Amino acid sequence: MDGYRGFLGLLVSALLVGFLSVIFSLVWVLHYREGLGWDGTALEFNWHPVFMVTGFVFIQGIAIIVYRLPWTWKCSKLLMKSIHAGLHTVAAILVIISLVSVFDYHNAGNIPNMYSLHSWVGLTVVILYILQLLLGVLVFLLPWAPLSLRALVMPMHVYSGLLIFGTVIATVLMGVTEKLIFGVSGYSTFPPEGVFANTLGLLNVVFGALIFWIVTRPQWQRPKEPNPILFQPNGGAREGAEGSAVNFSHVDQSDSKLNNEVAAKKRNFSVDEAGQRSTM
Amino acid sequence: MDGYRGFLGLLVSALLVGFLSVIFSLVWVLHYREGLGWDGTALEFNWHPVFMVTGFVFIQGIAIIVYRLPWTWKCSKLLMKSIHAGLHTVAAILVIISLVSVFDYHNAGNIPNMYSLHSWVGLTVVILYILQLLLGVLVFLLPWAPLSLRALVMPMHVYSGLLIFGTVIATVLMGVTEKLIFGVSGYSTFPPEGVFANTLGLLNVVFGALIFWIVTRPQWQRPKEPNPILFQPNGGAREGAEGSAVNFSHVDQSDSKLNNEVAAKKRNFSVDEAGQRSTM
Repeated sequence: MDGYRGFLGLLVSALLVGFLSVIFSLVWVLHYREGLGWDGTALEFNWHPVFMVTGFVFIQGIAIIVYRLPWTWKCSKLLMKSIHAGLHTVAAILVIISLVSVFDYHNAGNIPNMYSLHSWVGLTVVILYILQLLLGVLVFLLPWAPLSLRALVMPMHVYSGLLIFGTVIATVLMGVTEKLIFGVSGYSTFPPEGVFANTLGLLNVVFGALIFWIVTRPQWQRPKEPNPILFQPNGGAREGAEGSAVNFSHVDQSDSKLNNEVAAKKRNFSVDEAGQRSTM
Repeated sequence: MDGYRGFLGLLVSALLVGFLSVIFSLVWVLHYREGLGWDGTALEFNWHPVFMVTGFVFIQGIAIIVYRLPWTWKCSKLLMKSIHAGLHTVAAILVIISLVSVFDYHNAGNIPNMYSLHSWVGLTVVILYILQLLLGVLVFLLPWAPLSLRALVMPMHVYSGLLIFGTVIATVLMGVTEKLIFGVSGYSTFPPEGVFANTLGLLNVVFGALIFWIVTRPQWQRPKEPNPILFQPNGGAREGAEGSAVNFSHVDQSDSKLNNEVAAKKRNFSVDEAGQRSTM
């Protein structure tokens, strides 16, 4: 791997900052707020920030860069896809529990649901995340989708994944803002809780920035499989074709490779048009 | 251009959604709020959302995709760089006026500054934006920077540009959230102003999503200059080398081109290492 030390430094930074975000979300609810519980009170609400930061930010972020870990490059593409999908599934489960906790809390306290911009953007991005996960499993993990369909969906999969991740972080920032304004009297006087939760917000931004840098460096991509059609006749071509395409630049290469393979199979399909058709 | 109709559809959508965002910000302050003025009252504050949405979101977004417009591909790279930098400069001026208006308003009303997460992230991103603009002009627009320096800075320039743009939209979402909670009594009862400003927030997200899609499609990149070293001996090589690299995938190609040129000039410089060195 080119620049292994650089990669390692950024990976360790991302892990530290992500882990710190989770710790901060826990300290926030345990030390500054009421603690955790499941009784319809604020104790139940408090799972919302903890699970969102843990699942929707930290675990999703790791899932996004999992193909980049050079130690996994000897593992099969199918295994890595399973880990990628598995981490996203764990994240999705935490996100759903997190949503249940906030709706429970609102309903128990007769607080209206879904009026804030945080809730509008947040619920939209949760729905998109689950659709993205289902579509990803259906098209890329399960063995039935033809190459042409994978080529069609891949640019959207990569784009949506990164867009969803960025929007999740924006939604966390709105959530922290809401909670501090609603819950902390004298937020404008720089109370410790305000400064602490602001810092949690910044940590999320830094974590997102690190994940985006790692995933968009072409030199840190998982290497292409060596001619999978020749060496892995039983589905190997399909495995090697797109599983590791987790950034924009990789999509180009992955697309041209797919295009070549598709052309070799004499299917009349233009990958260049795929990205557009999927958005029109 | 491959998929010209697709590009055109997305460009028109982005322009419409961006323009609608600006209109929404104006209607918000003129119809739902106190209007506009420059007297230290809420009238002065109201320039803040209008100029941020206009400059930091809409104009910055257009500046990001300006190399993609196929009608400009016959224009010189220098002209396009000037337009790119010029639009960002206009945005930066609006952003600075917008910041002055909110600090003026706070100071006149004895409201503390810089306590909220919105202000922390917002001021950071304004500073980064101005640094990015100055560095961009210095390295890419002015003729003095050597190719090796341009190759070193380009991956960071593209990454930072998109990261800043995304963070700006997140900051707008926090700002809308803050203003609605502070300023609209009964936000939770779905008042027209709440729904309207939430919609403004969503429009900003959709605009950002469109810009990100347009700028990350490899097939919509400005074509490379045909061997600029041969055809434009007076600085042409430099012009052709990196000006249009406005997405991640383009960076790869631009980098390898730069690398070739640098290698041809027998400079001992590895572009693959450049992106890492610049972040370590």
